[in-house]
Parts: sequence; C-alpha cells; structure tokens
Amino acid sequence: MPKITRRLSAIPLKNVAITDGFWKERLETNRTAIIPAEHKQCKETGRLDVWSWKPGMPNEPHIYWDSDVAKWIEAVAYARYDQPDPEAEAQVDEYVESMRRGQAPDGYCNSHYILVEPEMRWTDLRNCHELYCAGHFIEAAVAYHQATGKDALLNIMLRYVDCIAAKFGTGEGQLRGIPGHPEIELALVKLYRHTGDPKHLALAGYFVNERGSKPYWWDVETEAWKARGGYRGWSWAPEYSQSEAPARELSVVRGHAVRAMYFYSAMADIAAESGDAALLEACNRLWDDLTRHKLYVTGGIGSSRANEGFTDPYDLPNETAYSETCAAIGLVFWARRLLAITPDRRYADLIELALYNAIMSGVSLDGVKFFYDNPLASAGKHTRQPWFGCSCCPTNVGRLLAALPQYIADKSDDGIWIHQYMTSRVEAEIDGATVFIFQKTEYPRASEIDFIVTPTAPVKFTLRLRVPAWANNQTLSINNKPAPCEPDTAGYISITREWVSGDTVKLTLPLTPRYVHARPEVGYDAGRAVLMRGPVVYCVEEADNGKNLAGVVLPEISEWRECGTSLPTCPSFKHFTLLETDAARAPVPCDSDAPLYSSAPQPLAPKKLRAIPYALWDNRGVGEMRVWMLV
Amino acid sequence: MPKITRRLSAIPLKNVAITDGFWKERLETNRTAIIPAEHKQCKETGRLDVWSWKPGMPNEPHIYWDSDVAKWIEAVAYARYDQPDPEAEAQVDEYVESMRRGQAPDGYCNSHYILVEPEMRWTDLRNCHELYCAGHFIEAAVAYHQATGKDALLNIMLRYVDCIAAKFGTGEGQLRGIPGHPEIELALVKLYRHTGDPKHLALAGYFVNERGSKPYWWDVETEAWKARGGYRGWSWAPEYSQSEAPARELSVVRGHAVRAMYFYSAMADIAAESGDAALLEACNRLWDDLTRHKLYVTGGIGSSRANEGFTDPYDLPNETAYSETCAAIGLVFWARRLLAITPDRRYADLIELALYNAIMSGVSLDGVKFFYDNPLASAGKHTRQPWFGCSCCPTNVGRLLAALPQYIADKSDDGIWIHQYMTSRVEAEIDGATVFIFQKTEYPRASEIDFIVTPTAPVKFTLRLRVPAWANNQTLSINNKPAPCEPDTAGYISITREWVSGDTVKLTLPLTPRYVHARPEVGYDAGRAVLMRGPVVYCVEEADNGKNLAGVVLPEISEWRECGTSLPTCPSFKHFTLLETDAARAPVPCDSDAPLYSSAPQPLAPKKLRAIPYALWDNRGVGEMRVWMLV
Repeated sequence: MPKITRRLSAIPLKNVAITDGFWKERLETNRTAIIPAEHKQCKETGRLDVWSWKPGMPNEPHIYWDSDVAKWIEAVAYARYDQPDPEAEAQVDEYVESMRRGQAPDGYCNSHYILVEPEMRWTDLRNCHELYCAGHFIEAAVAYHQATGKDALLNIMLRYVDCIAAKFGTGEGQLRGIPGHPEIELALVKLYRHTGDPKHLALAGYFVNERGSKPYWWDVETEAWKARGGYRGWSWAPEYSQSEAPARELSVVRGHAVRAMYFYSAMADIAAESGDAALLEACNRLWDDLTRHKLYVTGGIGSSRANEGFTDPYDLPNETAYSETCAAIGLVFWARRLLAITPDRRYADLIELALYNAIMSGVSLDGVKFFYDNPLASAGKHTRQPWFGCSCCPTNVGRLLAALPQYIADKSDDGIWIHQYMTSRVEAEIDGATVFIFQKTEYPRASEIDFIVTPTAPVKFTLRLRVPAWANNQTLSINNKPAPCEPDTAGYISITREWVSGDTVKLTLPLTPRYVHARPEVGYDAGRAVLMRGPVVYCVEEADNGKNLAGVVLPEISEWRECGTSLPTCPSFKHFTLLETDAARAPVPCDSDAPLYSSAPQPLAPKKLRAIPYALWDNRGVGEMRVWMLV
Repeated sequence: MPKITRRLSAIPLKNVAITDGFWKERLETNRTAIIPAEHKQCKETGRLDVWSWKPGMPNEPHIYWDSDVAKWIEAVAYARYDQPDPEAEAQVDEYVESMRRGQAPDGYCNSHYILVEPEMRWTDLRNCHELYCAGHFIEAAVAYHQATGKDALLNIMLRYVDCIAAKFGTGEGQLRGIPGHPEIELALVKLYRHTGDPKHLALAGYFVNERGSKPYWWDVETEAWKARGGYRGWSWAPEYSQSEAPARELSVVRGHAVRAMYFYSAMADIAAESGDAALLEACNRLWDDLTRHKLYVTGGIGSSRANEGFTDPYDLPNETAYSETCAAIGLVFWARRLLAITPDRRYADLIELALYNAIMSGVSLDGVKFFYDNPLASAGKHTRQPWFGCSCCPTNVGRLLAALPQYIADKSDDGIWIHQYMTSRVEAEIDGATVFIFQKTEYPRASEIDFIVTPTAPVKFTLRLRVPAWANNQTLSINNKPAPCEPDTAGYISITREWVSGDTVKLTLPLTPRYVHARPEVGYDAGRAVLMRGPVVYCVEEADNGKNLAGVVLPEISEWRECGTSLPTCPSFKHFTLLETDAARAPVPCDSDAPLYSSAPQPLAPKKLRAIPYALWDNRGVGEMRVWMLV
C-alpha cells in the first residue's frame, strides 16, 4: 500500500485565539467557573492531596483519580494562552512538586499503586486505568511545558515513560501488556511531537500494534490473577476495549465509546506519523460504520448505559441515550486527526455538530454543573450534577474548551484552511510573511462570516473556507465583490490570490430552520423529526412548553419564526436564535381519572411552541425535554 | 371501619374443567411439554437431587432452587385434575421422600441452608429467599395433598411451618423478621384454608402486619452482618420489597413487581379472612395507582429491568419493557383475590387481558421456550429461551396454566358468576342440587358464547355473566329468546330464574378490531395506537411484514379485515383471528449509502400489513415485532 501523509498541520495554540462571541464567553466561563470547579472538587475529594495520603487516612487514592488531576492541569495550561492565571498555575506547581516527591525511584508514578497497592503494579491493566492515568499526565505535561515553559511535570513524565517503555514491549523479559482503557497511545504521539524522540513514537506504536494480538493480554492477566487468587471476574468481551482484533482489521465500531474514540485517535496519529495506509483505511471503515449507523443527530455517540458504548446499528434510543459527554469529546479528537490527514468537511462538520450539541449540553451555562450522559428526551428527572464519582466528563469539557481555538484553522503547503466559524484571530507564517486572519461573526446566530486577511507583506496563498454539508445558497464576496462560492469535493471554497493587508472576505451561510429525519431503520425516531438551524439542534423544553411534549405534532417548517435571542430568565441564550410557532398541535389534556388506555384517540389542539438549542436545556430548572418530535 | 367480607367463593379445581379450545390446547401443552420441560431442567441442573448433594459435588444447591421444584410439584398437582400422570407423580414422590429424609430434626427444611450453609439459617432474609422457598413449598404441599390425597409433603411442611412459627413473631425470644421476597404470606393463608388451623392464619397475619414496621428488619440484619463480618452490601431501598411502610399505609405501587404482587395478594387474603377494611382499602389504592399509571396495554407490569419493577407513573417504554412473565402472573393472583372480595369486571377484565397477552407471550406455542421479560417492541434479537439461571417464570407459567380452570367461575350466596369465557364444565352445589354449567365457545376468535345449564333438579339462582368493558352491542338470549343484556354496575349481566336441565343461554360479544390509544402522558406511545380485538392485543411481526416496522403508519380501523386463523408455517394460530390490511403505509426503503439523517422526509408507500396476536410472536423465527404503531 502506498504511504499516506498528513496534509494539514496544526497552528500552535499560541497563534490562535477566540476573541468574542459565544465561544469566547464559554472560554471565559471555563476559566472562571469550570476549571475552578474542577480544582475545588479535586481538592475536596482528596485528589490533589493524594501524595501525602497514608494508610488509614480518608480519601484513599483511587485508580482513576490521577487522570482527573491531569485533565485539570491540561485545561489550566491551555487556558493560559487566553489569559494567565497565576493562582491556578501555583496550584498546579504545588501538586507537581508533591508528585515529584512521590515518584518512585525507578520513575513509576501512579498514586494509587505507589501508595495503596505497591505490590500490585501492572497486574490489572484491564480494569485499573494505570496506563490511562499515565496517558493523561503525559498530555498534561506536554501542554503545561508548552504553555509555561516549566519542565518539572514533563521531567516526571519522561522518567515515567522510560519506566513504562522498559516494562512493556515485545523484547525479552518485557510484558506484552496493553491498557484496558486506551489513552496513553495518543498521549505518547503528542509527547513524540514535542520531544522529537523516536522512542516515544515507538512506544505509542507498540501499544497500538499490540492491541488485539493473541493470546489476549486479558487472558494472560486473568490466568495470573487466578493463580494468585483474588480474581474479580470480568463480564466484558474483548470488543468492549477494542481489542477483539488488531487495529488494522477493525471495521465495526464496538464497545465502550470513549475507549473506542481514544484508540481510533491513536490509530490516526500512528497512521499520520508512519504513513501506514492500512491504519487509515481501518479508521475510514470505522468512521463510515459510526456515522452511518451509530451517531445521534446531536453528534453524540454510544447509546447504551450498560457498556457506556455502542450496540447494534440504528439502535439509538432517545430517553435512555447514554451519549456520554466524554464520548462526543473523543469523537472530536478523532475527527480532528482524520481532518488533518484527509481534509474533508465531513470531519469538520461533525466536530461542529458535536461541539454545539452533544458536548455543550454537557455543561451548564454557569459552568458548575455537568451531564455525564446526554439523553435526547427526558421525562423530567435528568439534571446536571456538580461532580461524579467517576468524574471524567467535567475535566474533559474543561480541557476541550481551553484548547478550542486549535479547531478553527490549519495550515497546508499552499495556504490556510478555515474549519470553524467563530470570532477569532489566526496567525500563520507563509513564505516568510506573517499572515493574520481576523474572523468576525455571530454565526450560528447570524449567517455572515467576515474575514480580514492581514499579511505583513503581500503573499500568495490559498484560503479555504468550509461550506457545511447542510448549507445551500451560500454567497461569497472578496473585497465586497461577489466571488465564486462552489465548494470543492472536500467541501471547501478555495480562494487563491495574492493577499494584501486589509483584504476582506465575506461568507454568508443562510440559516433557516429545517427538519431533519432519520433513516427508517432508526425505529426510535420513526414518525418524528428534529428541528435544526445551521449546526444547532433544537429541542422543546417544559420551561417554555409545559408537559407531555412527546405527543406534540410539529407544523410545516415555514410556520417557524425567529423570536429573538434571549429569555428573561436566562440572558445567556443571546448567542442563539430562539424559534417559535403557533401552528404546532398537542393532545388535549385528559381528565385525571380518564383511563390509561382508551379507544378514543386523543384530540389535538393548536399549540404554541418555543424551541431552544438542545445544548442549552436544563438551565431553567428540571423538566421535560424532547428533541425528536412527531410530524 | 366496618368489616368486609368476601362475596365470592372458589369452586374447587376438581369441579371445574376446561374441555376444548385454545386453553384446552394450552393445558395439554402444559401437561405434555411445559411441565416435563420443567422437570427435565430441574433434573439437569441438579435441583431435583439437592438432598443427596454433598460438599465438593457439582450443582451446589442454590438459595432459590427449592422454589422452582415446588412450583413444578404444584403444577403436577393441578394438572392431575385434567389427566393423571403417574410418571410425573412418581417423580414428585421420589423427590418428596428425599426431602423428608433431608429435613432437619427441628422441622427446618431449606436445602441450601441445611446442606451448604448450615450455620447461616435465617441470617439473610432480605436476599436469600429462605421464607420465599418455604412459601412455594407450602403451596405445593397443599395442592399435592388436595390433588392426590398424599400427605407426605404436607406433613413435611406442617413441621417446617411450626419451626418457622416458633422462630418468627413478636413474642419473647422470637425474631421480628420478614421475608425479602413475599410469598409465604399468601401460602400460609392457603394452608390455613386447607387445615383450618388458626395458627397458620396467625403466622400469615404476622408476616403481613410486621412488614414496614420500624426498625426495619433490613437494618437489623445489616447490623448483624456487619458485626459478624462479610456484609455484602445492598443497593435497594425498602420500597424495593414493599417494606417502606406498613401494609395499611401503602398507596403507591413501588419496587420489584413480583414481590409487590405476591404481597398485595397476601394483603387481600388477610383482608378477606380478617374482614380488615383498611387492608382492602390499601389494596384499592394500589390497584388504582397500578392500573392508572403503571400498566402496559398487554396487562404486563414492571417496566424496568434495573429493579425488575416499577418506576414513575406513565414510564412505560416498549423496546425495554421488562414486563416479567411472573409479574403478570402475580397480577392475576392479586386480581383474582380482589375479584372474590369485591366482584367487579375490572378485575376479571384485567385477568383476561394479562392471560391472553402478557402471560401467554411468556411461553412458546410448543411449550419448551420462555420469555422472562416481555417487551412490546423488538428490533429483532429478543427470543424465548429454554431456561434461565433464575428460572422463576417457566415454573410459574406451568402452575398458572394447570390451575387455570379456577379462574372461570365463582359461587356467591345467590348463584354463580362466570368470569372467563372458555369451553368448560363447572359443577356447583346450589340448594341441594348439583348444577353443571357447560360453556362452549370459540371466543375470542368468535363472538358467541353458549351455555347449557344442567341442574340435577330445578333450582332458582342467579347466573352472572361478565360483559368486558371493551364490549358493546352485546346480545343475550335465553332458550333462544332475546333477553335483557345490560350489565350491572359491576359489569355483569344477572339472570335470575329457576333453572331446569337443558336451559340454554347465548351471550354474544361482537368482536371487531379497534384501536387503543394511551393517555398523552405516556410519551413512549405518543402518536401511536394498538390494534386490539376483544381482549387480544395484536402486533406486527417481521415474519409477515418485513423490517423497519416502527415507521409503518396504520390505516383507518375499517381497513382491517379478518383473514383466517392459520398460517401455513404455524397451524397453532387457529384459535385466533388474524387481521390484514392493504392500506397501511410504510417508509420507502433508503439506499444503503443514504445518510443516517437527511432533510428529506421519508416518502411513504402503501403497505400490506398482517397483524397477529401479540402472545403468539416469536414462534416463527426471531425478528422484529411491534405493538404500538404510528397512526
């Protein structure tokens, strides 16, 4: 097979910033509420004081606690590009110093196993998140070093990675182990890209390539446990952790959704670094399976609570949709990597869809409450929580938001690709000139996206602008003159010219409400439709529309009108368009003593309906919510 | 509060028989397939050989195994009225003899605790089904003694009951324990009715009255476990086992559905025996809550797999409906008891509904495969199994079917009540005459129900015939002359006359297809309807209609036509009317590479649709099935 290459390269976070609008506000909330909330919870639960824990004390370090701290540190690091926060940085430095003192002489550095079960290191890779925690701390170490120049955490993790590399591999005396929860693979590629040291890429490659080989590591581990006594049992098949077959043979999305996304991300990383087309082809097969059969209309994935993951094609229940926040974040990680290898709007469209819907629903507007699972319908009990026993989602939201600017644009050999539309500043070097691209837009509330291109000297390059698949009738003008705006097969408009300072580009993506229908195989959505406008999925909520929303029948799409951007009780809706209609119909309420079932059909009466963006539900008190409505 | 009395008394099983038709065929299947399958499974799994088990041998007696054997014995006993089966009886006698030898000197007789954990008797009533197993063996002992006259099992259980009565109660030195899974309460009332010994009723009363009192027995037990070490934890609240409050204060149906039904049945029993109106009022409140908020259209109950039981009002999902076969059977037990206290068609209607739908779906036509849970929609994977690790449902179906004749009729002071319509013979003593009522009908395939009343001498009494709540335009003739047929407030037609041998009565209940709709609060059924005909719920199945049934839209009700009673591949449908229409509409199939979601609505095309009785699905290969259809 011919080698593949990565066509796009990332613009470093220091050279890109979100400067206004909804996402700027979310980043502010992240810095002032979400990240501090993570710190508070990590402190209160004992996660930040693990290294001074001693047997008999409360808050015994748990197997996955390190990962929460690591994700908080990673978020602090990224947020620093937006605005330095000396207090947060001091908190990180204090933790890192305690970690440095706690690190084992051989470099090993997992708090649970050093302090609680020192004799059990590396005995339960399947269940105990040891390599997973290492992965998150590798990501945090790279991010914190890049953002602050401080190398204490990086040095800890370089020693720990050496310890891991000595332990695991195909060499004599090494364990052929793999992590139950992938994460360290993509982290090691990040580390390699930061250090340039091929041993880091080699270790990542080992973990990716070893997965799915036989004998299964899980069986080796199980035998050892049984021989040692104390085996705890395990009810999952290898597919739960994407280890049913070697990576290059995978073609069906299976198992735990977050594990899947982290592993597929690493597959894309290794493909990009090694040029291995077989790995990319496996990614493409998995992508097709996911997006054709197992994707919620919100961009959420993993429909089942039982395995926190995937089930059968088209099995997408709404009320019980698991759609874990972390899984949608993992999907964004994976899509980002595939986009860089094979630029195509399908990846950027899905990133946008997940960001505006499945992921942003995961955090309250005030930034201190979180959904772990994101159902698409609620009878009125589901509500966000401040924290979870297994609290992966809040810290994942924090680090994703802080790093959000890096999703806006990429560089290619011939220019700049704009993937996401948000008011921002992108800075890139092209042929010796520094090019600033200032983007200004109220998208997706408004249709117009304005760019000012400002090179330090005139320079020829191609500026590419994504036209989302849902868009039509888009228009483009350059320096106020209409310009061709047909996207290429990748879904991007290409503008090649010699750019001079002050050139302007205006892209207009008309935003009108539309209904979206599912394939007939999706039984749960039969007879129903979703209201969308641009990338935003709408829902109806009890706060606006009362109860018994499942029986409400949508009107013709033309009956919807835009009705402003704010609600008295919740001013933060301002970045989105609210939609209203008087032409919906709803069952007339029953007498309270009417029977549960009756031969008389429920009569329908006209109903005024207000729809709000799905991601903003549950910000005005707990109540019913529904995405898919009868048509 | 004034005392209440039980208005109806049961006709002994020996005096009533089902003689032809669907139920006769089911009883034959029960005798020749279901009961032998139970025996085979009990034998193969070691359940029948528990009493010769010794430590180190395979098939260690499990805590609930005794109950399966007991229910098999109970079924053998009832089936004997229909046709003696010396082989089955010999199997029972052999088991009973092994049990007699195994019984402890003090009368204690639970196989698990005698053989596996002799020191742990009565330490874990919450989890370990000790009193539950005793209850089932009490029921079996009474049934087997009544049917065969053999008293070996009864004597074992009388000694065991004495042992239990010595251990539990409010007296000094007694444990104030109650069972985690109710069952012994109703069994002890059966025993009392058989022995006439008030101590048996008193013990039943103790268990009913003690439940819900504080301190909760669960807390007492938990403390003892913690003191002793080895506490296993428990995630259920007291309501899981209906112990959140004393019986007379209950008003909301909560927790594990089978536990609830068995306990409510005992509440009705104690109310009937003691005249305690407060217990009956609690039953009435619970009945209203159940039937108004928590009942499937099939008569199934308990919507959630998580607790095998009840959740919130109107939370009735279809695909994940738990609707355990045993729970619907328990509902029939409870309804039967309430019907005898307060004759009203609401109880007999629900018994009929559950029998034809939620319960009969629990067993295959060939009698050797069973559903534990009975969903109302399937994407194509749910299929009956020969047995289950916890195999309560198959043995419950067996004993229910074998005892089915006793649901047909009751006696009151002034005559005979006919509750259920099936070809049968009922024999009762009235004022010194022996009255036979021969019923002949193909109901619910056909509308006509014929009775021949044959007293040994002319005798005046009132014959009451139930008019189901769904019926209209019913007609009645007596000796071929039209007669008034308006039901009374209880829903029964009363015919009072001096009956002479050969008097005939013909009741006609016109059976036309109808749609049934749920209240708008039932979100899962919004925009959908169920096709019914008489008491029979219909479904559409992949075998007749292909896939993607969720999107099929039903036609006007008048578009349905009866289309015979048999399918070439499955002759046993003959007792039911199949329904067909050419006027349904279904989404046109999508191209396989069409996107999962699209702005284009799915076009609908005419669709021929065949509907079969819900209870008969999954008899022609595994596939899609759906009860609630779009309208």
